[in-house]
Amino acid sequence: MFRQITIIGMGLIGSSLARAISQKGLAERLIAVDADEDVCAAVETLGLADTATTDAIQGVQGSDLVILCVPTGAIKKLVEKIMPVLMPKAILTDVGSVKQSVINDVIPQLIEGISFVPAHPIAGTEHSGPESGFAELFSERWCILTPTADTSIKAVEGITELWEQCGAKIEIMDAAHHDLVFATTSHLPHLLAYAMVGTATTMEQDLKSEIIKYSASGFRGATRLAASDPTMWRDVCLDNREAILESLQRFSEDLAAMQKAIRRGDGDFLHQKFSQTRAIRREIEQLGPEGYPNPQRMAADSQDDQD
Amino acid sequence: MFRQITIIGMGLIGSSLARAISQKGLAERLIAVDADEDVCAAVETLGLADTATTDAIQGVQGSDLVILCVPTGAIKKLVEKIMPVLMPKAILTDVGSVKQSVINDVIPQLIEGISFVPAHPIAGTEHSGPESGFAELFSERWCILTPTADTSIKAVEGITELWEQCGAKIEIMDAAHHDLVFATTSHLPHLLAYAMVGTATTMEQDLKSEIIKYSASGFRGATRLAASDPTMWRDVCLDNREAILESLQRFSEDLAAMQKAIRRGDGDFLHQKFSQTRAIRREIEQLGPEGYPNPQRMAADSQDDQD
Repeated sequence: MFRQITIIGMGLIGSSLARAISQKGLAERLIAVDADEDVCAAVETLGLADTATTDAIQGVQGSDLVILCVPTGAIKKLVEKIMPVLMPKAILTDVGSVKQSVINDVIPQLIEGISFVPAHPIAGTEHSGPESGFAELFSERWCILTPTADTSIKAVEGITELWEQCGAKIEIMDAAHHDLVFATTSHLPHLLAYAMVGTATTMEQDLKSEIIKYSASGFRGATRLAASDPTMWRDVCLDNREAILESLQRFSEDLAAMQKAIRRGDGDFLHQKFSQTRAIRREIEQLGPEGYPNPQRMAADSQDDQD
Repeated sequence: MFRQITIIGMGLIGSSLARAISQKGLAERLIAVDADEDVCAAVETLGLADTATTDAIQGVQGSDLVILCVPTGAIKKLVEKIMPVLMPKAILTDVGSVKQSVINDVIPQLIEGISFVPAHPIAGTEHSGPESGFAELFSERWCILTPTADTSIKAVEGITELWEQCGAKIEIMDAAHHDLVFATTSHLPHLLAYAMVGTATTMEQDLKSEIIKYSASGFRGATRLAASDPTMWRDVCLDNREAILESLQRFSEDLAAMQKAIRRGDGDFLHQKFSQTRAIRREIEQLGPEGYPNPQRMAADSQDDQD
């Protein structure tokens, strides 16, 4: 499919993509770039690429596809650096969880002939680093592309093909709309998980130990997202500020209403609210873990620990 | 172990206990009581007990152990009803998620010779009803007993033996302390899950559909607890009001600090907060899903869907 692919940022997503690209034979040559020397060493040990280097300028030379897998806050400077040395007609793409800010950071820097296809694979685990990746990460997952009016159709087709080869299903979406949807479906749950663990962190030592000890009663599952990469999530919060603040505001109002009902002992209100949620949960469960109907996988995702 | 056991309330916990008791042969005879005729019919179809009845007074007669598996808000009236007909020296126990309020509801009603052992098995799924139960639900899980100074040691030993036979590990704890710990480790996460689904519920239809569609990016896992039984959780909120409000207050302050940092664009603060959580998550993961170290099960609980 591609002669030479460079992946910049060999964390969970970058290293999984490297594995999938190798496994499916999607490039004749695969270059890995990571600013961290230890990561480059791990990439070599794991055999994830033909070459691993900390030098992005060197790493992108001669590649017809460059995939940015770094936290979104690092994209602007990185593109400044590599743009002048990209091969003519090269395609640039990313995997960031926020799309409008990435577009704002990249599009103004584009040189004639270079295409940028903003992408967001809806896949991941709470683990980070090249050791955590695996080739099947994107299998039966959505990958959302948010091309602008000026994005080359041929480049969009190339990136679509890449992700489909990795097992993903493609959706095309407006970037601003993407950011609004994911503020609630992804960014809000991550923030709440971080805040919840934060609440436990400040508790006195004895209480904290017991909260950890009995975490199977809800805390463990509810805070799994809080193990995610801090740098990536800091950038998401900064880059999708408006939509996240709106989502947080809505959530805070809903939570305050429940808090008030608890204070007043208003059991009817609580029962009504707790019952209303079942319709959405049912729809989610019918979709299966990957977000679209797939009977084979529905059975696997049923039980979780809780009280 | 027991001649005759009566389980009142054949939901997830009651029906799982019935299955475990039968499987381990812990009683010569097992009576199931449920106020809902359809549940009694299901119990008979599933063969979960020797008899199933909607009549609690009839159901407890002749039993040396009566296990209350109803929502905590229903316990006081239920005990009023059955106390006069309990067998002399019968043991009464419960499975409620809140302990001090249950003690307050039951102890003043105790007749001479009847023992009450407050218990809370830390086990469950987000599913409800007798069809959802299974005998292994309590295997390798904690079960917390919160006896008072007056509780008969022999009765505590009997209930300990019962739960250990069902595969659980016993911890003895002060009731008020139990309620404080579980306000944060269990009740807070459930409330936040309900509120998060509530936030999505009020969104306009198009946005809501997409939040459901892409729920694998965090929302799905983070809101699993919101599928739990509304009546049970209404009662938990009412019965553990003070501790839950305190936990909610702490959480709201932590969330507000993050909100403020997002508004200000304070990336350092966010990165610091998101990094602090890793220590606790690591401890939780080392404990394994059941809350205590068990290398065999640690591997099974690692991956979850998210972005």
